[in-house]
Amino acid sequence: MLDIAPKFKALLVFIEHRFYGKSMPFGKDSYQSAKTLGYLNSQQALADFAVLITSLKQNVSSEASPVVVFGGSYGGMLAAWFRLKYPHIAIGALASSAPILQFDKLIPWSSFYDAVSQDFKDVSLNCYQVIKGSWAELEAMSTQKQALAELSKTFRTCKSLHSTASARDWLWTAFVYTAMVNYPTKADFMKPLPAYPVQKMCKIIDKIPSRATKLSRAFTAASLYYNYSRSENCFKIEHEVDGHGLHGWDWQTCTEMVMPMTCSKESMFPPSGFDYEEFAEQCRMKYGVSPRPHWITTEFGGERIQKVLKRFGSNIIFSNGMQDPWSRGGVLKNISSSIIALVTEKGAHHVDFRSATKKDPKWLIQLRKQEVEIIQKWLNEYYADL
Amino acid sequence: MLDIAPKFKALLVFIEHRFYGKSMPFGKDSYQSAKTLGYLNSQQALADFAVLITSLKQNVSSEASPVVVFGGSYGGMLAAWFRLKYPHIAIGALASSAPILQFDKLIPWSSFYDAVSQDFKDVSLNCYQVIKGSWAELEAMSTQKQALAELSKTFRTCKSLHSTASARDWLWTAFVYTAMVNYPTKADFMKPLPAYPVQKMCKIIDKIPSRATKLSRAFTAASLYYNYSRSENCFKIEHEVDGHGLHGWDWQTCTEMVMPMTCSKESMFPPSGFDYEEFAEQCRMKYGVSPRPHWITTEFGGERIQKVLKRFGSNIIFSNGMQDPWSRGGVLKNISSSIIALVTEKGAHHVDFRSATKKDPKWLIQLRKQEVEIIQKWLNEYYADL
Repeated sequence: MLDIAPKFKALLVFIEHRFYGKSMPFGKDSYQSAKTLGYLNSQQALADFAVLITSLKQNVSSEASPVVVFGGSYGGMLAAWFRLKYPHIAIGALASSAPILQFDKLIPWSSFYDAVSQDFKDVSLNCYQVIKGSWAELEAMSTQKQALAELSKTFRTCKSLHSTASARDWLWTAFVYTAMVNYPTKADFMKPLPAYPVQKMCKIIDKIPSRATKLSRAFTAASLYYNYSRSENCFKIEHEVDGHGLHGWDWQTCTEMVMPMTCSKESMFPPSGFDYEEFAEQCRMKYGVSPRPHWITTEFGGERIQKVLKRFGSNIIFSNGMQDPWSRGGVLKNISSSIIALVTEKGAHHVDFRSATKKDPKWLIQLRKQEVEIIQKWLNEYYADL
Repeated sequence: MLDIAPKFKALLVFIEHRFYGKSMPFGKDSYQSAKTLGYLNSQQALADFAVLITSLKQNVSSEASPVVVFGGSYGGMLAAWFRLKYPHIAIGALASSAPILQFDKLIPWSSFYDAVSQDFKDVSLNCYQVIKGSWAELEAMSTQKQALAELSKTFRTCKSLHSTASARDWLWTAFVYTAMVNYPTKADFMKPLPAYPVQKMCKIIDKIPSRATKLSRAFTAASLYYNYSRSENCFKIEHEVDGHGLHGWDWQTCTEMVMPMTCSKESMFPPSGFDYEEFAEQCRMKYGVSPRPHWITTEFGGERIQKVLKRFGSNIIFSNGMQDPWSRGGVLKNISSSIIALVTEKGAHHVDFRSATKKDPKWLIQLRKQEVEIIQKWLNEYYADL
């Protein structure tokens, strides 16, 4: 956005979502209980955007200026939904990596982890098999004596592990997030990582002689995610804190953003189902509220969302990179002449929103060019219509 | 709706709006303060409808059945807005007497009272002039000694009046509501009234010799509204309680449904402006909250609402009767081939929603027939599209 704003002589406005960053409606008490957290939801956020944009335009005497909304990931869903619900405020939306179909039963629940697995399998079948086999080895250790001490050594933990669960989460996170940020250039989105980090991970695995355990090989690969910058002497596996403030997101997944996920037998993760009742019980314990698993499809359209978009929507770009496991919940085919799906085989999580670099591949440059052209078309139509 | 449902083999569902009737989310405490009343607003009501309709369809295994929403007055606004925001749930909306343009500066603020005045003027210029002149006579009495006693006598009050203000409100209400319900047949919507009650009121005024004061003539006309059934021996002018539960509506007008109204010099009411600050201060005193005068236009579209409806909406009938002063805030011209304005010169407040009677005039029978035909078209299109 910073790269293209000057072309459009655009004012860039980053609107912080309520309950994130510094936007705490009840100050320090904002996260205290469901009483305050109840105001944290996507509809209230969309309404905030509507009010802010409308009053900002008045304040700067730009009532006639067209507004295009941009968002990636959850922000991408918000951008698409905003265009759908507030077409009088935004003339178009660029929704990057927006999994608006990740709800209810709109897509198979195993899609996400199948996609992560496909990323690794596409690079190397051995890599996929090693990771797939590592979980059973880890599981076996939890019943062995002295296993945790050995595991702590293998995983180079700063302190001795108390269970295998944290090691499991640690590996899991590394593989999932690396698939998400499998960018074509060196990047530092979640963590500093090299270009195409999934390839690098698999190269690490494929290089290690096969007499080494699958678990140790999986660990070495995962270390790339946590220690590419070589700044860590040991890993704080039990205290790995997610740095990008997911507390609010956890509340949202427990209320409206219910996205059921399972691991199929074909995935590289241990097979698992989605036990809605267990999930709901956890939410009730954490927040004292029950999730509303059908709310998003009720509010924004479910089974017929594509039809709704086709008939009532316009001027939305859904961009998705197929490396990104969230892409499977995205809109991957054009819905109409003005609801466009831009899909890149080698793209990852909202890669188009990253600043341009000299090493960007042609397909990425082309993707961004297409987006600019489409947005320009919206603007031309808007001004012609004035 | 009861008349036409059988033709469509339709299930009729009357959804009670939260905070009205028996739908009290906090029981007896629902109206206690802004803390509970905060949940009384149009967006929450629309979301209720979405959830109720979706889950009801599931419960009765009718997921594929099309839904058409009906509403009159505020309910008509809700119906139109519901179709706009939830096109995936309702295939069409019949919005009768829905003043969706009565907000912000979308129409002249004097429209409403000018329309009331026009109703009376169209029947008899003398009638209009008598009512127009009556306010000054009433005003003059407030400074005279013994005036209130005299006024109490003129107005046949059950108890002596303490001020002229209540007599003013009493007259005012009678003229405004009679214009609204100026139906072509005997009816009992707000009060029992004869056919075309504005004509009857003016007939009363025109019959009284002009030596009588304007005020006494206006009183006699207004009595028609309060005592057509001849059940009252005296009038409880200071304790006239509005029977249809407007407490919730008062909250809504103090928060989101801010509809500024003024009386022009041409109206039959004393000229008055709209002092927003005074209005806001009253709301703060009553409820401890400030109104959001631009919210409705932000949420549903303001200056460009017609454009928004044309481009993003479809399948809405806006029906309006020009006798109804609310018609001036309604959609009176077709917006597109499927957003249709049905306007009747002699119609009053959602007259089309009243049960058919043997005395219905031709234009009313025709209006209802058109509505049925349009709804049938929506259904045909829906089934063809399945």
